[in-house]
Amino acid sequence: MLRQASTILPIRASRAGLNEITENLASWLSQAGIHNGLLTIFCRHTSASLVIQENAAPAARRDLERYFARLAPEDGPYEHDDEGPDDMPAHLRSALTATQLSIPVEGARMMLGTWQGVFLFEHRRGTPEREIVLHLIGE
Amino acid sequence: MLRQASTILPIRASRAGLNEITENLASWLSQAGIHNGLLTIFCRHTSASLVIQENAAPAARRDLERYFARLAPEDGPYEHDDEGPDDMPAHLRSALTATQLSIPVEGARMMLGTWQGVFLFEHRRGTPEREIVLHLIGE
Amino acid sequence: MLRQASTILPIRASRAGLNEITENLASWLSQAGIHNGLLTIFCRHTSASLVIQENAAPAARRDLERYFARLAPEDGPYEHDDEGPDDMPAHLRSALTATQLSIPVEGARMMLGTWQGVFLFEHRRGTPEREIVLHLIGE
Repeated sequence: MLRQASTILPIRASRAGLNEITENLASWLSQAGIHNGLLTIFCRHTSASLVIQENAAPAARRDLERYFARLAPEDGPYEHDDEGPDDMPAHLRSALTATQLSIPVEGARMMLGTWQGVFLFEHRRGTPEREIVLHLIGE
Repeated sequence: MLRQASTILPIRASRAGLNEITENLASWLSQAGIHNGLLTIFCRHTSASLVIQENAAPAARRDLERYFARLAPEDGPYEHDDEGPDDMPAHLRSALTATQLSIPVEGARMMLGTWQGVFLFEHRRGTPEREIVLHLIGE
Repeated sequence: MLRQASTILPIRASRAGLNEITENLASWLSQAGIHNGLLTIFCRHTSASLVIQENAAPAARRDLERYFARLAPEDGPYEHDDEGPDDMPAHLRSALTATQLSIPVEGARMMLGTWQGVFLFEHRRGTPEREIVLHLIGE
């Protein structure tokens, strides 16, 4: 019999950039009581986002952060800067990555590949507290 | 007992760029008869896409439109231009944003953050009629 | 009565770039025994990704490949290059496109638009074997 569960996970990044949350998700999954199904991760913000990336090489993580800093730079020709120079690039970097991810679950574990980790991509230097909604459906 | 519902939502953008569709989605949700679950929004096109963005500041919306106009410009070195100069950039901007979004639902409302709105990102100046598939599963 | 099914689809791209997998997905769907619901496609890698794109014009496909080659070039200022010059751009191109897609299903067929195809975007020249997880829920 299929059923569902959900929760809101509050998270504060330790710094702007990629913050791995794989363990936070795994921990909730391990006690949600649904073993096989689909986990959806939803970020309730437009200045932070989600990315699945290489979980082993810190250099890859730094390259990815530097790349997005070049691709959507702080010194762009922006009209919207109410909250400072990291405001508009945060929205752009969010639009270029993901606000939501769904990951199949088997044996109460995400079916991630060997080198995959799930990251909160915090785009604001102030690292405000964030809310991630988790929704799990399955049996 | 879990169940599902779905529909095809026809939408014509009023102009190229970000067109908020949050209310269109909320309106269907309010009468779909499923209160808690997961809403999936699927755009049946490769020259229009979906973005969750800041719903309050029009300047942020304009900046985002101008950013994608620079990032995937009309005057690029494209081979494919059967339908004019806004044809290939439309495909690129779609690939860089989202074709599908899934959003958890509680009390028959999307669990969006305070500043989040759902937008159809219309990339063609001709603003053809578009079809968005909505799928809702829950109870 | 809702139920679910899942499988792991092994795929090896014939070349780096966009490889259409629509038929592979359709083939599994046609025998999964669930007619209406939601199909989720999850790529278990950080150097290959998923894109829904124009399935008719080969020129559009080539333009898209060339665009991402310019946007995240091989000769960037990368720190991480353990596996060669196509290593870090592969991670960047994955982050810019999708690791996961969910597509509504009706009559055992994906509700794709007329011009939409699902592609594995292989970013490594060595085209290693890849694993795509398919999860289907519905009735």
